[in-house]
Amino acid sequence: MKKVTACIVTIGDEILIGQTLDTNSQYIAKLLVEIGVSVEKMLTIPDTHEAIFSTLTHCIENYDITLTTGGLGPTSDDITKKTITDIFGAKLILNQDVLQDVKELVERKGRTLTVNNKQQALVPENCEVLRNKRGTAPGMWFNRNGHILVNMPGVPFEMKGLMEQVIPKIKETFSLPVIVYKMVYTIGIPEAVLATKLEQWEKQLPSFIRLAYLPSPGRVKLRLQAQGDNKAELEKQIDKEIEKLFAIIPEYIYSTEKENLSEVLGDLLRNKKLTLATAESCTGGYLAHLITSISGSSDYYKGSIISYSNEVKMNLLDVSPKVLETQGAVSEPVVIQMAKAVAQKLNTDCSIATSGIAGPTGGTPEKPVGTVWIAVYYKGEIITKKYVFTTNRSINIELASLMGMNMLRKMILGK
Amino acid sequence: MKKVTACIVTIGDEILIGQTLDTNSQYIAKLLVEIGVSVEKMLTIPDTHEAIFSTLTHCIENYDITLTTGGLGPTSDDITKKTITDIFGAKLILNQDVLQDVKELVERKGRTLTVNNKQQALVPENCEVLRNKRGTAPGMWFNRNGHILVNMPGVPFEMKGLMEQVIPKIKETFSLPVIVYKMVYTIGIPEAVLATKLEQWEKQLPSFIRLAYLPSPGRVKLRLQAQGDNKAELEKQIDKEIEKLFAIIPEYIYSTEKENLSEVLGDLLRNKKLTLATAESCTGGYLAHLITSISGSSDYYKGSIISYSNEVKMNLLDVSPKVLETQGAVSEPVVIQMAKAVAQKLNTDCSIATSGIAGPTGGTPEKPVGTVWIAVYYKGEIITKKYVFTTNRSINIELASLMGMNMLRKMILGK
Repeated sequence: MKKVTACIVTIGDEILIGQTLDTNSQYIAKLLVEIGVSVEKMLTIPDTHEAIFSTLTHCIENYDITLTTGGLGPTSDDITKKTITDIFGAKLILNQDVLQDVKELVERKGRTLTVNNKQQALVPENCEVLRNKRGTAPGMWFNRNGHILVNMPGVPFEMKGLMEQVIPKIKETFSLPVIVYKMVYTIGIPEAVLATKLEQWEKQLPSFIRLAYLPSPGRVKLRLQAQGDNKAELEKQIDKEIEKLFAIIPEYIYSTEKENLSEVLGDLLRNKKLTLATAESCTGGYLAHLITSISGSSDYYKGSIISYSNEVKMNLLDVSPKVLETQGAVSEPVVIQMAKAVAQKLNTDCSIATSGIAGPTGGTPEKPVGTVWIAVYYKGEIITKKYVFTTNRSINIELASLMGMNMLRKMILGK
Repeated sequence: MKKVTACIVTIGDEILIGQTLDTNSQYIAKLLVEIGVSVEKMLTIPDTHEAIFSTLTHCIENYDITLTTGGLGPTSDDITKKTITDIFGAKLILNQDVLQDVKELVERKGRTLTVNNKQQALVPENCEVLRNKRGTAPGMWFNRNGHILVNMPGVPFEMKGLMEQVIPKIKETFSLPVIVYKMVYTIGIPEAVLATKLEQWEKQLPSFIRLAYLPSPGRVKLRLQAQGDNKAELEKQIDKEIEKLFAIIPEYIYSTEKENLSEVLGDLLRNKKLTLATAESCTGGYLAHLITSISGSSDYYKGSIISYSNEVKMNLLDVSPKVLETQGAVSEPVVIQMAKAVAQKLNTDCSIATSGIAGPTGGTPEKPVGTVWIAVYYKGEIITKKYVFTTNRSINIELASLMGMNMLRKMILGK
């Protein structure tokens, strides 16, 4: 089977001057690799006619698929569309569908159509429009003798919406190999320790299965990828290997389906008809945010009391002034009192409480930055744990939130 | 003055398959732009001899400076060094300084020197070694007829250490222009509307000042960049243009120094010695998280009551059951009651309350997804506003949090 190649082009001075971090290329590459397209190059070029013209002309000739982001906004620094018409010797024409989309979007926001908005509805006559429901710039799909060029706006949310149309169209257009991959999501074990535990298992993997470790704070994803021509057989082989994994590291696997731990915990709570509240100090609302970022979380989540001062801990969470004085806010008895009080006041079956030193300042020799106490409450019982994370504030907040959810998940499952 | 151009090349399959996000290129670009180098292209290519050979050969010819990261590790997939010797027709020789650095590093970690480690001390005979105190792979600086090639390892921490040597060397090697840029941060005005408002101002900008619009949800950054040879004069000219901007769109500019709105609001609260509490429904803790993501926020932020159910709204925030029944949770009287109650219960000078339909489900014809009521309380007064944002849950949560903070900021400033 002939390899299908792709090049990802980012258009924008804001990337080249280092002002904006390009995350679009990684997102697009992941999706392409999943369907068996080989990403051969990523490029970032300036917003100039010359750079766009020469780069795109070269890419269309040399790759099966060229995907671009950026340069499609309504303002004057965006000249991509004009350059594309020059590449194809095409004219810009008004597309009524796009005009309708733009109108609806603008009206929804209670504004009136500007001249700039209207220009968004002009597209090269030889393109297939990919309608963008998330912004005013449409995506554009060109086919020159089997070589595909796709232009998308650079706003990540809009690009992601358009990629939902682009991936199926690529699968229709090209003959691609069968690639099957499955994920195993682990939490609470560092990559190096995990790798040692899995050494023997990794050695016996069949040659058509590739393994990758994908670490992020507190978690490691294992990706098993198999390539061949029989999808069902590949899936069976991967499932067999995942079964073996469950025998080796059962306590660290939280899902094989969902990466989002708040979703996994949410499903568990919904299935068991349990309700949850949180009491947060160092996590400062991030735990609540992770839980409520899941649509439908109001089925099981009732709310939180964020006590960012001792006064609020005492007044709203009945934390004893004496304990605060003798043990400090970052202590086991304080998180126990917080967890109990919030479950009682919000009338829930479970709760999670956090108190710690997020940093970068505020550490002491006994309680260095990164020290976090967590308590979880479930059916009258309480489990506590002390962690010492990192010196980085945002990572500490994230880890404390994740570990709190994982403690409750394991407690409910009796693990 | 002749423009000095640069190309940044990332070598590594892990970037192309979307496994790793490249943050090195942005870091390097920022440093180059600050000293007046024009970054013309960024490239990511695979770990193959062919790709590295053809790309670097082309870049050395076409740019004054080519900087690469990646492909210098000790493992077998890293063939950059070998390819570079081919490009220059050079031999690899053992560098005693590098060998010493590698030995020290390995010993510090309590390990013994491996064959792989020793190979790290082999460098092309025509390179100037940039010693790396943070890892085993040295940086390499080549000069071919005034065209510079620099190779650095891909580990960000190591690359950053080497850039401390690279930047001064570039300044010595080239005669560089002065570049000054300043930012203006706006909120609450869409890019297209802003562009229309600024059309005349944009037209009268002196030719040495370039303007860029950088949009993100709810906000647009304006970047003004001037190039010349007198730094003080360029700064004066840009400041003059920014002053004019303040006359045209005073109500939309929230900072010219800090992009982070929670930091801007936090500075204002600290300076005015004001305290803040939040009462969140649809934002579900994200508003609290944005506020507490700033180190030192406990100076002014006391906490939040997240009421994700009507029961909690009634019990903890004294929202009237009758109002909930007749007006619904997403209504003006409810956010007014929430804002008042939380300021009173947490004993603060200000508060922000949110209630809305984050989506994607739960909308009605009268209250579509994206409808959010916000109330802000300051010194006994309350201001409310109804927004209709998007159909995307996470963007609605973000926008509601940002707009709430901005409403309070403007109220305190009397704008």
